[in-house]
Amino acid sequence: MIKDRVRTETYKAAITQHQNSIAGKVVVDVGCGTGILSIFCAQVGAKRVYAVDASEIAIQASAVVKANNLSDTVIVLHGRVEDVEIDEGVDVIISEWMGYMLLYESMLESVITARDRWLKPGGLILPSSATLYMAPVTHTDRYRDSIDFWRNVYGIDMSAMLALAKQCAFEEPSVETISGENVLTWPHVVKQVDCYAVTIDELKSVATRYRFKSMMRAPLHGFAFWFDVEFNGPAIFPTSTDSPSLFIGSSSNNPVDGSQRKKRSNPNEALVLSTAPEDPPTHWQQTLIYLYEPVDLEQDQLIEGSVTLSQSKENPRFMNIRLEYAAGGRAFVKESVMR
Amino acid sequence: MIKDRVRTETYKAAITQHQNSIAGKVVVDVGCGTGILSIFCAQVGAKRVYAVDASEIAIQASAVVKANNLSDTVIVLHGRVEDVEIDEGVDVIISEWMGYMLLYESMLESVITARDRWLKPGGLILPSSATLYMAPVTHTDRYRDSIDFWRNVYGIDMSAMLALAKQCAFEEPSVETISGENVLTWPHVVKQVDCYAVTIDELKSVATRYRFKSMMRAPLHGFAFWFDVEFNGPAIFPTSTDSPSLFIGSSSNNPVDGSQRKKRSNPNEALVLSTAPEDPPTHWQQTLIYLYEPVDLEQDQLIEGSVTLSQSKENPRFMNIRLEYAAGGRAFVKESVMR
Repeated sequence: MIKDRVRTETYKAAITQHQNSIAGKVVVDVGCGTGILSIFCAQVGAKRVYAVDASEIAIQASAVVKANNLSDTVIVLHGRVEDVEIDEGVDVIISEWMGYMLLYESMLESVITARDRWLKPGGLILPSSATLYMAPVTHTDRYRDSIDFWRNVYGIDMSAMLALAKQCAFEEPSVETISGENVLTWPHVVKQVDCYAVTIDELKSVATRYRFKSMMRAPLHGFAFWFDVEFNGPAIFPTSTDSPSLFIGSSSNNPVDGSQRKKRSNPNEALVLSTAPEDPPTHWQQTLIYLYEPVDLEQDQLIEGSVTLSQSKENPRFMNIRLEYAAGGRAFVKESVMR
Repeated sequence: MIKDRVRTETYKAAITQHQNSIAGKVVVDVGCGTGILSIFCAQVGAKRVYAVDASEIAIQASAVVKANNLSDTVIVLHGRVEDVEIDEGVDVIISEWMGYMLLYESMLESVITARDRWLKPGGLILPSSATLYMAPVTHTDRYRDSIDFWRNVYGIDMSAMLALAKQCAFEEPSVETISGENVLTWPHVVKQVDCYAVTIDELKSVATRYRFKSMMRAPLHGFAFWFDVEFNGPAIFPTSTDSPSLFIGSSSNNPVDGSQRKKRSNPNEALVLSTAPEDPPTHWQQTLIYLYEPVDLEQDQLIEGSVTLSQSKENPRFMNIRLEYAAGGRAFVKESVMR
């Protein structure tokens, strides 16, 4: 993942942008991996950086820190954020916690734990917020490659394979790169995460209703999910959900006219790490939920429904995705598991 | 795999070429999958085709056969070749049994079982023989992408990651497509399989000594393995290993001057399905064993050693690969597991 230049360079730029909040301060890097973000923080003058990782890579991180003569500043802690001890308040939490589809196998719970254990009032969390989007997509080439192939295979009628082929191709969510041209209209905000206020409980199940108006006549093949994260300064987020929000277009009242495209006010010109189809590709790509049967859409046709993301009971690491969609008077449900 | 046109079209051509041996005869298709090879055989006039598969795909194969009005000719048997019953001798065995590196997760044992249970004397086996090759390769781009990246990451010395990066990148065999330009000299024959004579016992461990002379000055990054299979007619192979062989250059006396390039006489102009780097790509690609440290080779430098492929004790489906290699007075051992 460190080879994902968009990711690493955006984090580096964010650390530089917030240099004044980091220099002379205590930082925790949650899920430090190779330690690269910890070292970036040390390079802009952090007083002390606790680099925490539960995996064996913490051993390499220690060696990297030592090789860069930063052992006095960067303290690698090999263990879970829930278990390791830090005997001082921290001013900054930095973490690259985002999973596929933002929440799949993410480390956001560890960030919340670190925040609640150690972050001083007024402290900084980078990234400060995250937004998960969805949009309807058309992808005829992908559908044809996976399915239409079977209608005539070397002159043999293999239609009997279609059901199995569809199941194999489309049962599970697919992490792949699509282009902006596959997207049929402006995205819907599935979930906004304010890293200063989010709780572990609210991540257990995320549900939203959506309403899209297709901008073109095309077969609907499925829905794409992607996210972005912002690197804002601290304390601009109200912690009460009753307070006026800086966000425009929360998931309960999305406009369908495109005004959510610039989906929030950004008075600080905060840095954004985007994994949208129209932006440069990252290792997160996009996550696609394909329908077993395409739905032919007219221009301006409405697609309405809901999506629920929840932890699997089968395995807490898996994510259940329940998608309801209706278009042209027909309604469908697609359930899938990201494993 | 059915989408691998090289594979499917070569099988179709072989069935057409051997039409006279198939028309009016009884055929067994070992591991029939979707049933496509069974249907090809029915189309050239087979009297009866038993299409055997242990997996659930046999259900789809039945439906495909029915959709093509071939239920009177093609009998789908859902079960293992060891377990299903066929109450007559068979004239032809056809099977697409080859795994990665020929023998990894292959179905050759099932072909042998089918042969020993049902094949009449003088019967036909397609393919009739298979050959596994290896050759030393240079692949600087691949090595640089995986390893050299860590020497300087966004200005940080990450050399401490090198050992782990090498382990992650090169510990396991890698199935990937290389080009003929990566190959440093003519290949060595690791194993020849005569489908009429091969026994299950001789597949449990395959060992060979090799001797290469690099045709160029280049870093040796590892060894590539690939295979081809031939679709010869029956009974041209002597079954005794003492008899003169049609093969030139068995694994015990490979010349190093390139004469094994055309590695066997081919008096029948038999069809060959090749997965070599210089041939059109197939889903089998090539299998690469990378060295942790490249070895700088001079032109005409000898590389000598041995390779042993054996069933893993940990899991019978895994394949252990023990590679010994010596060049320029230094000797190494690389052990890996294909899982």
